[in-house]
Amino acid sequence: MSPGASNNPIGIFDSGIGGLTVFREVASILPNENLLYLGDTARVPYGTKSAATVLRYALQNVRFLLEKNVKMVVVACNTASAFALAEVQKQFEIPIIGVIEPGVTGALKMTRSRRIGVIGTEGTISSGAYTQSLLAKSPSAFVTSVACPLFVPLVEEGWWETRITEEIAQTYLGGMLKEKIDTLILGCTHYPLIKQTLRKVAGGAVTLIDSAEETTRAVSTLLTGKNLLAPENKNPGRVFFVTDSPERFQKMADLFLKQDLKDVRHVEI
Amino acid sequence: MSPGASNNPIGIFDSGIGGLTVFREVASILPNENLLYLGDTARVPYGTKSAATVLRYALQNVRFLLEKNVKMVVVACNTASAFALAEVQKQFEIPIIGVIEPGVTGALKMTRSRRIGVIGTEGTISSGAYTQSLLAKSPSAFVTSVACPLFVPLVEEGWWETRITEEIAQTYLGGMLKEKIDTLILGCTHYPLIKQTLRKVAGGAVTLIDSAEETTRAVSTLLTGKNLLAPENKNPGRVFFVTDSPERFQKMADLFLKQDLKDVRHVEI
Repeated sequence: MSPGASNNPIGIFDSGIGGLTVFREVASILPNENLLYLGDTARVPYGTKSAATVLRYALQNVRFLLEKNVKMVVVACNTASAFALAEVQKQFEIPIIGVIEPGVTGALKMTRSRRIGVIGTEGTISSGAYTQSLLAKSPSAFVTSVACPLFVPLVEEGWWETRITEEIAQTYLGGMLKEKIDTLILGCTHYPLIKQTLRKVAGGAVTLIDSAEETTRAVSTLLTGKNLLAPENKNPGRVFFVTDSPERFQKMADLFLKQDLKDVRHVEI
Repeated sequence: MSPGASNNPIGIFDSGIGGLTVFREVASILPNENLLYLGDTARVPYGTKSAATVLRYALQNVRFLLEKNVKMVVVACNTASAFALAEVQKQFEIPIIGVIEPGVTGALKMTRSRRIGVIGTEGTISSGAYTQSLLAKSPSAFVTSVACPLFVPLVEEGWWETRITEEIAQTYLGGMLKEKIDTLILGCTHYPLIKQTLRKVAGGAVTLIDSAEETTRAVSTLLTGKNLLAPENKNPGRVFFVTDSPERFQKMADLFLKQDLKDVRHVEI
Protein backbone atom coordinates (compact mmCIF):
# COMPACT_ATOMS: atom_id res chain seq x y z
CA MET A 1 0.00 0.00 0.00
CA SER A 2 1.35 3.42 -0.89
CA PRO A 3 2.70 5.68 1.90
CA GLY A 4 -0.24 8.04 1.39
CA ALA A 5 -2.75 5.30 2.07
CA SER A 6 -4.09 6.87 5.25
CA ASN A 7 -5.38 9.72 3.10
CA ASN A 8 -7.20 7.31 0.84
CA PRO A 9 -10.93 7.14 1.35
CA ILE A 10 -12.92 4.55 3.25
CA GLY A 11 -15.26 2.81 0.81
CA ILE A 12 -18.73 2.04 2.13
CA PHE A 13 -21.25 0.13 0.11
CA ASP A 14 -24.83 -0.91 0.58
CA SER A 15 -27.56 -2.26 -1.66
CA GLY A 16 -29.17 1.16 -1.50
CA ILE A 17 -29.59 3.91 1.02
CA GLY A 18 -29.72 2.04 4.34
CA GLY A 19 -25.93 2.15 4.61
CA LEU A 20 -26.22 5.90 4.95
CA THR A 21 -26.84 5.31 8.67
CA VAL A 22 -23.35 3.78 8.79
CA PHE A 23 -21.97 6.59 6.64
CA ARG A 24 -23.51 9.16 8.99
CA GLU A 25 -21.97 7.53 12.03
CA VAL A 26 -18.51 7.14 10.49
CA ALA A 27 -18.59 10.76 9.30
CA SER A 28 -19.53 11.88 12.79
CA ILE A 29 -17.04 9.78 14.79
CA LEU A 30 -14.15 9.90 12.29
CA PRO A 31 -14.56 13.37 10.81
CA ASN A 32 -11.16 13.48 9.11
CA GLU A 33 -11.81 10.50 6.90
CA ASN A 34 -12.50 10.85 3.20
CA LEU A 35 -15.61 8.79 2.51
CA LEU A 36 -16.79 7.20 -0.66
CA TYR A 37 -20.25 5.68 -0.63
CA LEU A 38 -21.64 3.28 -3.22
CA GLY A 39 -25.38 2.59 -3.22
CA ASP A 40 -26.31 -0.21 -5.61
CA THR A 41 -29.72 1.36 -6.11
CA ALA A 42 -30.38 -0.27 -9.48
CA ARG A 43 -30.30 -3.69 -7.83
CA VAL A 44 -31.75 -2.91 -4.41
CA PRO A 45 -32.99 -4.75 -2.38
CA TYR A 46 -30.53 -7.53 -1.66
CA GLY A 47 -32.68 -8.82 1.22
CA THR A 48 -34.95 -10.96 -0.95
CA LYS A 49 -32.26 -12.22 -3.33
CA SER A 50 -30.34 -15.49 -3.26
CA ALA A 51 -26.89 -15.90 -1.74
CA ALA A 52 -25.27 -16.47 -5.14
CA THR A 53 -26.76 -13.29 -6.59
CA VAL A 54 -25.79 -11.19 -3.56
CA LEU A 55 -22.22 -12.53 -3.66
CA ARG A 56 -21.90 -11.62 -7.34
CA TYR A 57 -23.09 -8.08 -6.62
CA ALA A 58 -20.80 -7.70 -3.59
CA LEU A 59 -17.73 -8.75 -5.57
CA GLN A 60 -18.56 -6.21 -8.27
CA ASN A 61 -19.08 -3.48 -5.67
CA VAL A 62 -15.76 -4.13 -3.94
CA ARG A 63 -13.95 -4.16 -7.30
CA PHE A 64 -15.49 -0.80 -8.11
CA LEU A 65 -14.37 0.68 -4.79
CA LEU A 66 -10.85 -0.71 -5.21
CA GLU A 67 -10.55 1.11 -8.51
CA LYS A 68 -11.19 4.27 -6.51
CA ASN A 69 -8.21 3.46 -4.25
CA VAL A 70 -10.06 2.99 -1.01
CA LYS A 71 -7.94 1.98 1.99
CA MET A 72 -10.65 -0.26 3.44
CA VAL A 73 -14.19 -1.35 2.65
CA VAL A 74 -17.23 -1.39 4.91
CA VAL A 75 -19.96 -3.73 3.74
CA ALA A 76 -22.74 -1.57 5.21
CA CYS A 77 -25.43 -4.04 4.25
CA ASN A 78 -26.48 -6.90 6.48
CA THR A 79 -27.56 -9.17 3.66
CA ALA A 80 -24.25 -8.73 1.81
CA SER A 81 -22.35 -9.19 5.09
CA ALA A 82 -24.27 -12.39 5.73
CA PHE A 83 -23.92 -13.89 2.28
CA ALA A 84 -20.68 -12.49 0.93
CA LEU A 85 -18.28 -11.14 3.57
CA ALA A 86 -16.13 -14.26 4.01
CA GLU A 87 -15.71 -14.66 0.27
CA VAL A 88 -14.88 -11.01 -0.47
CA GLN A 89 -12.38 -11.02 2.42
CA LYS A 90 -10.77 -14.07 0.81
CA GLN A 91 -10.60 -12.55 -2.66
CA PHE A 92 -9.19 -9.12 -1.78
CA GLU A 93 -6.17 -8.09 0.27
CA ILE A 94 -7.57 -4.81 1.53
CA PRO A 95 -9.25 -4.83 4.99
CA ILE A 96 -13.00 -5.43 4.64
CA ILE A 97 -15.45 -5.39 7.51
CA GLY A 98 -19.14 -6.11 7.62
CA VAL A 99 -21.92 -5.05 9.96
CA ILE A 100 -22.73 -8.42 11.51
CA GLU A 101 -19.63 -9.11 13.63
CA PRO A 102 -19.70 -5.65 15.22
CA GLY A 103 -23.38 -6.09 16.08
CA VAL A 104 -22.71 -9.51 17.58
CA THR A 105 -19.78 -8.22 19.62
CA GLY A 106 -21.85 -5.28 20.85
CA ALA A 107 -24.77 -7.51 21.84
CA LEU A 108 -22.57 -9.96 23.75
CA LYS A 109 -20.98 -7.06 25.59
CA MET A 110 -24.37 -5.68 26.68
CA THR A 111 -26.47 -8.76 27.44
CA ARG A 112 -26.76 -10.02 31.00
CA SER A 113 -29.27 -12.80 30.55
CA ARG A 114 -27.75 -14.00 27.23
CA ARG A 115 -31.24 -13.92 25.73
CA ILE A 116 -30.79 -12.04 22.47
CA GLY A 117 -33.21 -11.10 19.70
CA VAL A 118 -32.26 -10.29 16.11
CA ILE A 119 -34.39 -8.47 13.52
CA GLY A 120 -33.53 -7.94 9.86
CA THR A 121 -34.59 -8.53 6.26
CA GLU A 122 -35.72 -11.91 5.01
CA GLY A 123 -32.28 -12.58 3.49
CA THR A 124 -30.34 -11.68 6.62
CA ILE A 125 -32.58 -13.66 8.95
CA SER A 126 -32.89 -16.74 6.74
CA SER A 127 -29.10 -16.78 6.29
CA GLY A 128 -28.83 -17.47 10.03
CA ALA A 129 -25.63 -15.40 10.07
CA TYR A 130 -26.37 -13.59 13.35
CA THR A 131 -27.50 -16.72 15.14
CA GLN A 132 -24.45 -18.66 14.01
CA SER A 133 -22.05 -15.94 14.98
CA LEU A 134 -23.70 -15.35 18.38
CA LEU A 135 -23.69 -19.06 19.20
CA ALA A 136 -20.11 -19.52 17.99
CA LYS A 137 -18.99 -16.85 20.45
CA SER A 138 -21.42 -17.72 23.23
CA PRO A 139 -22.71 -21.28 22.90
CA SER A 140 -25.04 -20.97 25.88
CA ALA A 141 -26.86 -17.93 24.50
CA PHE A 142 -30.54 -18.10 23.62
CA VAL A 143 -31.08 -16.45 20.23
CA THR A 144 -34.41 -15.71 18.58
CA SER A 145 -34.83 -13.88 15.28
CA VAL A 146 -37.58 -12.57 13.04
CA ALA A 147 -37.66 -11.05 9.55
CA CYS A 148 -39.40 -7.67 9.41
CA PRO A 149 -39.91 -6.95 5.69
CA LEU A 150 -42.17 -3.94 6.31
CA PHE A 151 -39.62 -1.91 8.23
CA VAL A 152 -37.57 -0.85 5.21
CA PRO A 153 -40.54 0.59 3.29
CA LEU A 154 -41.84 2.19 6.51
CA VAL A 155 -38.49 3.91 7.01
CA GLU A 156 -38.43 5.01 3.39
CA GLU A 157 -41.95 6.41 3.74
CA GLY A 158 -40.61 8.51 6.61
CA TRP A 159 -43.23 7.02 8.97
CA TRP A 160 -40.68 6.67 11.74
CA GLU A 161 -42.67 7.49 14.84
CA THR A 162 -46.22 6.73 13.76
CA ARG A 163 -48.85 4.57 15.37
CA ILE A 164 -48.84 2.28 12.32
CA THR A 165 -45.11 1.61 12.63
CA GLU A 166 -45.59 0.99 16.34
CA GLU A 167 -48.36 -1.54 15.69
CA ILE A 168 -46.31 -3.31 13.05
CA ALA A 169 -43.34 -3.41 15.42
CA GLN A 170 -45.61 -4.92 18.10
CA THR A 171 -46.65 -7.61 15.63
CA TYR A 172 -43.07 -8.43 14.66
CA LEU A 173 -41.50 -8.20 18.13
CA GLY A 174 -44.32 -9.73 20.16
CA GLY A 175 -42.93 -13.26 20.08
CA MET A 176 -39.39 -12.37 21.10
CA LEU A 177 -40.51 -10.05 23.86
CA LYS A 178 -42.47 -12.95 25.33
CA GLU A 179 -39.20 -14.87 25.25
CA LYS A 180 -37.78 -12.24 27.63
CA ILE A 181 -34.83 -11.10 25.52
CA ASP A 182 -32.72 -8.39 27.16
CA THR A 183 -30.86 -7.32 24.00
CA LEU A 184 -32.14 -6.69 20.49
CA ILE A 185 -29.81 -6.43 17.48
CA LEU A 186 -31.12 -4.11 14.76
CA GLY A 187 -29.79 -6.26 11.96
CA CYS A 188 -30.59 -3.91 9.09
CA THR A 189 -29.02 -0.55 8.37
CA HIS A 190 -32.43 1.06 7.89
CA TYR A 191 -33.58 0.28 11.40
CA PRO A 192 -31.64 2.91 13.39
CA LEU A 193 -34.06 5.43 11.90
CA ILE A 194 -37.00 3.83 13.73
CA LYS A 195 -35.03 3.28 16.92
CA GLN A 196 -37.37 5.50 18.99
CA THR A 197 -40.37 3.41 18.02
CA LEU A 198 -38.52 0.14 18.52
CA ARG A 199 -37.35 1.30 21.94
CA LYS A 200 -40.91 2.17 22.90
CA VAL A 201 -42.21 -1.23 21.79
CA ALA A 202 -39.31 -3.24 23.22
CA GLY A 203 -39.48 -1.44 26.56
CA GLY A 204 -36.80 -0.16 28.91
CA ALA A 205 -35.50 -3.61 29.85
CA VAL A 206 -34.22 -4.34 26.35
CA THR A 207 -30.96 -2.84 25.05
CA LEU A 208 -31.01 -2.01 21.37
CA ILE A 209 -27.82 -2.70 19.41
CA ASP A 210 -27.38 -0.31 16.51
CA SER A 211 -25.08 -1.78 13.85
CA ALA A 212 -24.11 1.65 12.58
CA GLU A 213 -22.60 2.58 15.94
CA GLU A 214 -20.96 -0.79 16.50
CA THR A 215 -19.53 -0.91 12.99
CA THR A 216 -18.06 2.57 13.31
CA ARG A 217 -16.32 1.44 16.48
CA ALA A 218 -14.88 -1.51 14.52
CA VAL A 219 -13.72 0.77 11.69
CA SER A 220 -11.98 3.05 14.17
CA THR A 221 -10.25 0.13 15.92
CA LEU A 222 -9.11 -1.36 12.64
CA LEU A 223 -7.71 1.88 11.21
CA THR A 224 -6.00 2.72 14.49
CA GLY A 225 -4.41 -0.74 14.64
CA LYS A 226 -3.12 -0.48 11.09
CA ASN A 227 -1.99 3.11 11.55
CA LEU A 228 -4.31 4.14 8.75
CA LEU A 229 -6.39 6.86 10.43
CA ALA A 230 -6.56 9.94 8.24
CA PRO A 231 -4.59 12.99 9.41
CA GLU A 232 -6.47 16.15 10.31
CA ASN A 233 -8.58 17.21 7.38
CA LYS A 234 -10.85 20.24 7.42
CA ASN A 235 -12.44 19.43 4.11
CA PRO A 236 -12.90 15.68 3.95
CA GLY A 237 -14.29 14.19 0.72
CA ARG A 238 -17.85 12.91 0.65
CA VAL A 239 -18.57 11.29 -2.69
CA PHE A 240 -21.62 9.18 -3.47
CA PHE A 241 -22.01 6.75 -6.36
CA VAL A 242 -25.32 5.15 -7.22
CA THR A 243 -26.17 2.57 -9.88
CA ASP A 244 -29.63 4.02 -10.58
CA SER A 245 -30.50 7.67 -11.08
CA PRO A 246 -29.30 10.06 -8.35
CA GLU A 247 -32.67 11.79 -7.80
CA ARG A 248 -34.37 9.25 -5.56
CA PHE A 249 -31.14 8.67 -3.66
CA GLN A 250 -30.83 12.39 -3.01
CA LYS A 251 -34.42 12.59 -1.80
CA MET A 252 -33.87 9.69 0.59
CA ALA A 253 -30.49 10.99 1.73
CA ASP A 254 -32.25 14.18 2.65
CA LEU A 255 -34.57 12.10 4.86
CA PHE A 256 -31.77 9.91 6.28
CA LEU A 257 -28.98 12.43 6.77
CA LYS A 258 -30.96 15.66 7.01
CA GLN A 259 -28.63 17.18 4.47
CA ASP A 260 -28.45 17.91 0.77
CA LEU A 261 -25.89 15.74 -0.96
CA LYS A 262 -24.01 17.64 -3.57
CA ASP A 263 -21.79 15.04 -5.14
CA VAL A 264 -23.94 12.09 -6.23
CA ARG A 265 -22.79 10.41 -9.43
CA HIS A 266 -24.43 7.74 -11.51
CA VAL A 267 -22.25 4.74 -12.33
CA GLU A 268 -22.80 1.43 -14.18
CA ILE A 269 -21.44 -1.60 -12.37
CA MET B 1 -45.57 -15.63 -38.28
CA SER B 2 -45.70 -19.40 -38.72
CA PRO B 3 -49.08 -21.12 -39.37
CA GLY B 4 -48.89 -22.79 -35.96
CA ALA B 5 -48.58 -19.45 -34.18
CA SER B 6 -51.90 -19.78 -32.36
CA ASN B 7 -50.38 -22.70 -30.46
CA ASN B 8 -47.43 -20.61 -29.41
CA PRO B 9 -47.45 -19.42 -25.83
CA ILE B 10 -48.46 -16.03 -24.51
CA GLY B 11 -45.43 -14.46 -22.81
CA ILE B 12 -46.16 -12.57 -19.60
CA PHE B 13 -43.46 -10.70 -17.74
CA ASP B 14 -43.29 -8.75 -14.53
CA SER B 15 -40.50 -7.43 -12.35
CA GLY B 16 -41.31 -10.19 -9.90
CA ILE B 17 -44.37 -12.00 -8.67
CA GLY B 18 -47.10 -9.36 -8.90
CA GLY B 19 -47.80 -10.28 -12.51
CA LEU B 20 -49.01 -13.64 -11.25
CA THR B 21 -52.38 -11.95 -10.64
CA VAL B 22 -52.49 -11.33 -14.42
CA PHE B 23 -51.25 -14.85 -15.11
CA ARG B 24 -53.97 -16.26 -12.85
CA GLU B 25 -56.67 -14.30 -14.63
CA VAL B 26 -55.46 -15.18 -18.15
CA ALA B 27 -55.19 -18.86 -17.17
CA SER B 28 -58.73 -18.75 -15.82
CA ILE B 29 -60.41 -16.88 -18.70
CA LEU B 30 -58.35 -18.33 -21.57
CA PRO B 31 -57.71 -21.87 -20.32
CA ASN B 32 -56.47 -23.27 -23.66
CA GLU B 33 -53.53 -20.90 -23.89
CA ASN B 34 -49.97 -22.02 -23.27
CA LEU B 35 -48.49 -19.52 -20.84
CA LEU B 36 -44.92 -18.58 -20.25
CA TYR B 37 -44.19 -16.31 -17.29
CA LEU B 38 -40.98 -14.42 -16.70
CA GLY B 39 -40.39 -12.87 -13.26
CA ASP B 40 -37.32 -10.66 -13.20
CA THR B 41 -36.85 -11.44 -9.52
CA ALA B 42 -33.13 -10.64 -9.44
CA ARG B 43 -33.90 -7.03 -10.36
CA VAL B 44 -37.23 -6.51 -8.60
CA PRO B 45 -38.62 -3.97 -7.81
CA TYR B 46 -38.90 -1.77 -10.88
CA GLY B 47 -41.14 0.69 -9.02
CA THR B 48 -38.28 2.67 -7.49
CA LYS B 49 -35.96 2.58 -10.51
CA SER B 50 -35.44 5.19 -13.20
CA ALA B 51 -37.19 5.15 -16.58
CA ALA B 52 -33.94 4.40 -18.42
CA THR B 53 -33.14 1.40 -16.22
CA VAL B 54 -36.68 0.01 -16.48
CA LEU B 55 -36.65 0.37 -20.27
CA ARG B 56 -33.37 -1.53 -20.51
CA TYR B 57 -34.77 -4.36 -18.40
CA ALA B 58 -38.03 -4.47 -20.37
CA LEU B 59 -36.21 -4.76 -23.70
CA GLN B 60 -34.13 -7.63 -22.35
CA ASN B 61 -37.24 -9.37 -21.04
CA VAL B 62 -39.10 -9.10 -24.33
CA ARG B 63 -36.06 -10.40 -26.23
CA PHE B 64 -35.92 -13.39 -23.90
CA LEU B 65 -39.61 -14.17 -24.44
CA LEU B 66 -39.24 -13.82 -28.23
CA GLU B 67 -36.53 -16.47 -28.20
CA LYS B 68 -39.15 -18.74 -26.66
CA ASN B 69 -41.47 -18.11 -29.66
CA VAL B 70 -44.27 -16.37 -27.83
CA LYS B 71 -47.13 -15.14 -30.03
CA MET B 72 -47.70 -12.03 -27.96
CA VAL B 73 -46.30 -10.36 -24.85
CA VAL B 74 -48.16 -9.00 -21.83
CA VAL B 75 -46.17 -6.46 -19.85
CA ALA B 76 -47.81 -7.42 -16.55
CA CYS B 77 -46.00 -4.72 -14.63
CA ASN B 78 -47.33 -1.21 -14.27
CA THR B 79 -43.94 0.43 -13.95
CA ALA B 80 -42.62 -1.26 -17.10
CA SER B 81 -45.88 -0.44 -18.91
CA ALA B 82 -45.51 3.20 -17.86
CA PHE B 83 -41.86 3.60 -18.73
CA ALA B 84 -41.24 1.16 -21.55
CA LEU B 85 -44.37 0.02 -23.40
CA ALA B 86 -44.29 2.53 -26.25
CA GLU B 87 -40.62 1.82 -26.92
CA VAL B 88 -40.89 -1.98 -26.83
CA GLN B 89 -43.93 -1.82 -29.12
CA LYS B 90 -41.81 0.23 -31.52
CA GLN B 91 -38.85 -2.13 -31.43
CA PHE B 92 -40.66 -5.45 -31.87
CA GLU B 93 -43.24 -6.62 -34.44
CA ILE B 94 -45.12 -9.01 -32.18
CA PRO B 95 -48.25 -7.67 -30.41
CA ILE B 96 -47.37 -6.32 -26.98
CA ILE B 97 -49.89 -5.00 -24.48
CA GLY B 98 -49.43 -3.41 -21.10
CA VAL B 99 -51.63 -3.13 -18.04
CA ILE B 100 -52.23 0.62 -18.08
CA GLU B 101 -54.43 1.08 -21.15
CA PRO B 102 -56.80 -1.73 -20.13
CA GLY B 103 -57.12 -0.19 -16.65
CA VAL B 104 -57.82 3.23 -18.12
CA THR B 105 -60.41 1.87 -20.53
CA GLY B 106 -62.08 -0.06 -17.71
CA ALA B 107 -62.18 2.99 -15.45
CA LEU B 108 -63.68 5.25 -18.11
CA LYS B 109 -66.33 2.64 -18.82
CA MET B 110 -67.34 2.45 -15.16
CA THR B 111 -67.10 6.02 -13.88
CA ARG B 112 -70.18 8.21 -13.78
CA SER B 113 -68.81 11.30 -12.11
CA ARG B 114 -65.49 11.20 -14.05
CA ARG B 115 -63.67 11.56 -10.71
CA ILE B 116 -61.04 8.85 -10.80
CA GLY B 117 -58.34 7.83 -8.33
CA VAL B 118 -55.17 5.89 -9.19
CA ILE B 119 -52.90 4.03 -6.77
CA GLY B 120 -49.59 2.37 -7.61
CA THR B 121 -45.87 2.21 -6.89
CA GLU B 122 -43.72 5.33 -6.74
CA GLY B 123 -42.46 4.72 -10.30
CA THR B 124 -45.90 4.23 -11.80
CA ILE B 125 -47.43 7.24 -10.07
CA SER B 126 -44.52 9.59 -10.65
CA SER B 127 -44.48 8.61 -14.34
CA GLY B 128 -47.95 10.18 -14.62
CA ALA B 129 -48.83 7.47 -17.16
CA TYR B 130 -52.35 6.81 -15.84
CA THR B 131 -53.19 10.49 -15.49
CA GLN B 132 -51.96 11.28 -18.99
CA SER B 133 -53.82 8.40 -20.55
CA LEU B 134 -57.06 9.15 -18.66
CA LEU B 135 -56.94 12.83 -19.60
CA ALA B 136 -56.05 12.08 -23.22
CA LYS B 137 -59.20 9.97 -23.53
CA SER B 138 -61.41 12.09 -21.29
CA PRO B 139 -60.07 15.64 -20.98
CA SER B 140 -62.78 16.69 -18.54
CA ALA B 141 -61.98 13.91 -16.04
CA PHE B 142 -60.71 14.75 -12.56
CA VAL B 143 -57.78 12.46 -11.77
CA THR B 144 -56.01 12.13 -8.42
CA SER B 145 -53.22 9.65 -7.68
CA VAL B 146 -51.11 8.50 -4.78
CA ALA B 147 -48.09 6.20 -4.46
CA CYS B 148 -48.59 3.41 -1.89
CA PRO B 149 -45.13 1.89 -1.36
CA LEU B 150 -46.21 -0.21 1.63
CA PHE B 151 -48.85 -2.22 -0.23
CA VAL B 152 -46.40 -4.50 -2.05
CA PRO B 153 -44.58 -5.64 1.10
CA LEU B 154 -47.93 -5.97 2.92
CA VAL B 155 -49.20 -8.24 0.15
CA GLU B 156 -45.98 -10.25 0.25
CA GLU B 157 -46.28 -10.62 4.02
CA GLY B 158 -49.71 -12.15 3.41
CA TRP B 159 -51.33 -9.48 5.64
CA TRP B 160 -54.18 -9.06 3.19
CA GLU B 161 -57.15 -8.53 5.44
CA THR B 162 -55.56 -7.24 8.62
CA ARG B 163 -56.29 -4.16 10.64
CA ILE B 164 -52.80 -2.82 9.91
CA THR B 165 -53.35 -3.03 6.16
CA GLU B 166 -56.71 -1.36 6.61
CA GLU B 167 -55.16 1.50 8.59
CA ILE B 168 -52.41 1.96 6.05
CA ALA B 169 -55.01 1.96 3.26
CA GLN B 170 -56.96 4.62 5.15
CA THR B 171 -53.83 6.75 5.36
CA TYR B 172 -53.07 6.40 1.65
CA LEU B 173 -56.64 6.71 0.34
CA GLY B 174 -57.93 9.34 2.75
CA GLY B 175 -57.15 12.28 0.48
CA MET B 176 -58.71 10.88 -2.66
CA LEU B 177 -61.82 9.70 -0.87
CA LYS B 178 -62.34 13.26 0.35
CA GLU B 179 -62.12 14.24 -3.33
CA LYS B 180 -65.21 12.06 -3.92
CA ILE B 181 -63.78 9.74 -6.53
CA ASP B 182 -66.26 7.14 -7.80
CA THR B 183 -63.67 4.86 -9.45
CA LEU B 184 -60.29 3.65 -8.20
CA ILE B 185 -57.70 2.05 -10.49
CA LEU B 186 -55.50 -0.51 -8.73
CA GLY B 187 -52.41 0.43 -10.70
CA CYS B 188 -50.12 -2.33 -9.42
CA THR B 189 -50.42 -6.03 -10.09
CA HIS B 190 -50.00 -6.84 -6.40
CA TYR B 191 -53.06 -4.91 -5.35
CA PRO B 192 -55.82 -7.30 -6.45
CA LEU B 193 -54.75 -9.46 -3.51
CA ILE B 194 -55.81 -6.78 -1.03
CA LYS B 195 -58.97 -5.90 -2.95
CA GLN B 196 -61.24 -6.87 -0.03
CA THR B 197 -59.49 -4.44 2.28
CA LEU B 198 -59.37 -1.70 -0.35
CA ARG B 199 -63.07 -2.17 -1.02
CA LYS B 200 -63.83 -1.88 2.68
CA VAL B 201 -61.79 1.32 3.00
CA ALA B 202 -62.98 2.87 -0.27
CA GLY B 203 -66.63 2.12 0.52
CA GLY B 204 -69.49 0.89 -1.63
CA ALA B 205 -69.71 4.06 -3.76
CA VAL B 206 -66.29 3.51 -5.33
CA THR B 207 -65.77 0.97 -8.14
CA LEU B 208 -62.40 -0.76 -8.02
CA ILE B 209 -60.68 -1.40 -11.34
CA ASP B 210 -58.52 -4.52 -11.27
CA SER B 211 -55.85 -4.39 -14.00
CA ALA B 212 -55.54 -8.15 -14.08
CA GLU B 213 -59.18 -8.52 -15.16
CA GLU B 214 -59.07 -5.62 -17.60
CA THR B 215 -55.80 -6.78 -19.15
CA THR B 216 -57.13 -10.30 -19.65
CA ARG B 217 -60.08 -8.82 -21.49
CA ALA B 218 -57.64 -6.92 -23.73
CA VAL B 219 -55.60 -10.09 -24.38
CA SER B 220 -58.72 -11.98 -25.35
CA THR B 221 -59.89 -9.21 -27.71
CA LEU B 222 -56.46 -8.95 -29.32
CA LEU B 223 -56.04 -12.69 -29.90
CA THR B 224 -59.60 -13.01 -31.20
CA GLY B 225 -59.06 -10.11 -33.62
CA LYS B 226 -55.84 -11.62 -34.97
CA ASN B 227 -57.28 -15.14 -35.09
CA LEU B 228 -54.59 -16.28 -32.70
CA LEU B 229 -56.65 -17.87 -29.91
CA ALA B 230 -55.26 -21.30 -29.04
CA PRO B 231 -57.36 -24.31 -30.11
CA GLU B 232 -58.77 -26.58 -27.43
CA ASN B 233 -55.98 -27.83 -25.22
CA LYS B 234 -56.51 -30.09 -22.26
CA ASN B 235 -52.96 -29.82 -21.06
CA PRO B 236 -51.83 -26.24 -21.60
CA GLY B 237 -48.21 -25.34 -20.78
CA ARG B 238 -47.44 -23.32 -17.66
CA VAL B 239 -43.76 -22.51 -17.53
CA PHE B 240 -42.16 -20.00 -15.17
CA PHE B 241 -38.76 -18.41 -15.55
CA VAL B 242 -37.17 -16.33 -12.82
CA THR B 243 -33.90 -14.43 -12.77
CA ASP B 244 -33.20 -15.12 -9.09
CA SER B 245 -33.52 -18.45 -7.29
CA PRO B 246 -36.87 -20.26 -7.74
CA GLU B 247 -37.46 -20.92 -4.01
CA ARG B 248 -38.81 -17.55 -2.93
CA PHE B 249 -40.85 -17.30 -6.13
CA GLN B 250 -42.42 -20.67 -5.43
CA LYS B 251 -43.24 -19.68 -1.87
CA MET B 252 -44.88 -16.46 -3.05
CA ALA B 253 -46.67 -18.20 -5.93
CA ASP B 254 -48.13 -20.52 -3.35
CA LEU B 255 -49.51 -17.44 -1.57
CA PHE B 256 -50.63 -15.69 -4.77
CA LEU B 257 -52.04 -18.59 -6.80
CA LYS B 258 -52.82 -21.05 -4.03
CA GLN B 259 -51.02 -23.72 -5.99
CA ASP B 260 -47.65 -25.41 -6.14
CA LEU B 261 -45.75 -24.43 -9.24
CA LYS B 262 -43.90 -27.36 -10.68
CA ASP B 263 -41.96 -25.88 -13.54
CA VAL B 264 -39.98 -22.88 -12.28
CA ARG B 265 -36.61 -22.41 -13.98
CA HIS B 266 -33.78 -20.07 -13.19
CA VAL B 267 -32.50 -18.01 -16.09
CA GLU B 268 -29.85 -15.27 -16.48
CA ILE B 269 -30.99 -12.30 -18.53
